[in-house]
Amino acid sequence: MDLTSKVLKGDVLSAARLIRCLEDEIEGATEELEKLYTHTGQAHVIGITGAPGVGKSTILACLIGNFRKMGKTVGVVAVDPSSPFSGGAILGDRVRMQAYSGDSNVFIRSLASRGWKGGLSRATMSTVHVMDAMGKDLIMVEAVGSGQADIDIARISDTVVLVLNPGAGDEVQMMKAGILEAADIFAINKSDMPGADLLKLSLDAMLALSAKEAQTSFWKPPVIMAEAIGKKGIDEIAEAILKHKEHLGESDELAKRRQERARLELAWAVEDFVKIHLEGMDQEYLAQLVDNLAQRKNNPRSVARNIIAMISSGGRDGFFAHRTAEDA
Amino acid sequence: MDLTSKVLKGDVLSAARLIRCLEDEIEGATEELEKLYTHTGQAHVIGITGAPGVGKSTILACLIGNFRKMGKTVGVVAVDPSSPFSGGAILGDRVRMQAYSGDSNVFIRSLASRGWKGGLSRATMSTVHVMDAMGKDLIMVEAVGSGQADIDIARISDTVVLVLNPGAGDEVQMMKAGILEAADIFAINKSDMPGADLLKLSLDAMLALSAKEAQTSFWKPPVIMAEAIGKKGIDEIAEAILKHKEHLGESDELAKRRQERARLELAWAVEDFVKIHLEGMDQEYLAQLVDNLAQRKNNPRSVARNIIAMISSGGRDGFFAHRTAEDA
Repeated sequence: MDLTSKVLKGDVLSAARLIRCLEDEIEGATEELEKLYTHTGQAHVIGITGAPGVGKSTILACLIGNFRKMGKTVGVVAVDPSSPFSGGAILGDRVRMQAYSGDSNVFIRSLASRGWKGGLSRATMSTVHVMDAMGKDLIMVEAVGSGQADIDIARISDTVVLVLNPGAGDEVQMMKAGILEAADIFAINKSDMPGADLLKLSLDAMLALSAKEAQTSFWKPPVIMAEAIGKKGIDEIAEAILKHKEHLGESDELAKRRQERARLELAWAVEDFVKIHLEGMDQEYLAQLVDNLAQRKNNPRSVARNIIAMISSGGRDGFFAHRTAEDA
Repeated sequence: MDLTSKVLKGDVLSAARLIRCLEDEIEGATEELEKLYTHTGQAHVIGITGAPGVGKSTILACLIGNFRKMGKTVGVVAVDPSSPFSGGAILGDRVRMQAYSGDSNVFIRSLASRGWKGGLSRATMSTVHVMDAMGKDLIMVEAVGSGQADIDIARISDTVVLVLNPGAGDEVQMMKAGILEAADIFAINKSDMPGADLLKLSLDAMLALSAKEAQTSFWKPPVIMAEAIGKKGIDEIAEAILKHKEHLGESDELAKRRQERARLELAWAVEDFVKIHLEGMDQEYLAQLVDNLAQRKNNPRSVARNIIAMISSGGRDGFFAHRTAEDA
């Protein structure tokens, strides 16, 4: 049986191997992912974002328990390098994780920042696809808490949970960065700390304002008080996620989000296609083109135009030295 | 007379207009730049990098005076948003600048970080090309002092001057980031501060080590003590720049650097070409392709392959709704 069929049957070792091969850019790995792609799109993808230390991992660890009790299969992609899933562990979370180490219905992978030339977003998307193809019902992605990464994760998630802490004062920064707008569910973790009520008030006020602006969307993001360390609020977060999933399915919002994601993936694929073919071009000929440019016999745009023409006809006339086989 | 001919005659207003049009992505601006390209490659491009506050602008302002005295025409591209050239002025530098405001042989432009969708490196390169086509002998690029930007500027410069301060302890960070290796000339500014001799010693030691490794290059980067505010060391820096220029011409290093740059520009042009055509594609058809992806009827790689084929034949069969004229 080949790798694709094994992954589709949910085989953990094959999935882990494919993810590793994608990470190491082993030849053929992208083709395997290509074959899996038409089997994906079933899983619900949940992005968990927030500043470092805010309690994302603890909430995520608790949520696994909730979803498992409901009989759901779960995938976890940890992008945060300091996440306990990635080894940079907080003891409590590590203990919580170990509860699932023997559960074949929970598949956890962390993405190292090494490798993945295409950037972490693409790597995350690829890993999500593999888990999706494995048949995981819910896939949680823990994002590193920096502005751009938070927004990137929002682009590849169906439901975005933003974790905040009272008194941290991150709200204004986050509003500027467009992170608050991307959140579907707010979780105020460590809500026993002073300032929790004030934070909830200000979030509610902000949401009331933006609800008036965006009248097309009927989803009002809930603001949930949580103390993840004592499992307080976790049931509410799990419930809100499933409610949001339901809302997406009933409205046209799910189709819209998935289309945006497909558009993003297409743009990436076009970029990759060109890059791979440039690398695979007859290097002597390419050097000659570059030489002409360096001597100002031509301009970059004209040469680029010719190269695109060559790339698109490359598979046919054997112009390319490498990589033609995989495009045949 | 058209814009291209005017820029080639050194007309300041036309050059300023073209740079502004490139920045605002006015239609036709890229085509003008394309026409100018074969007239470029004459100027010597000098990158001035270093951490913020290290004295880059002051050194640059002084160097203009030196080069003008030698009868050279000068272009300045300020990429640092806090640079006095960009308006974020330190009074002393502003006064120094004003000395050249009436000199038509000195052309100064600052790049705002707004606009320039392709990123600051491409914007800088385009601006350098315009100044080059104007006939400026020496073009100085002041780079914002962050790791990646420093290296990017090094990629588009013939000579890289790295400005350091004593006691700042940036050397280790810079060595890690590969910035020290990219420098052709070191200027220790504020060399009256404690630690200047120590910094010079450690740089000399490092250079002695790396000289053994890179035996093909015969250029030993000089380490120059400067106090730009008192114009100390400026003559030495100017001299070192011209000496390095001479060295490049005599060795095969200049041709090598220009080829690397041409390769970089070609990669950018290919990227831009694809991006522009994706944006200019029949949007209804593109939406249909995206829809197929969202419904998992196809995979991104296959669709990307088809799109590239369409892009390359686009100009001919009128498949594209927009932007076909400029590719005719």
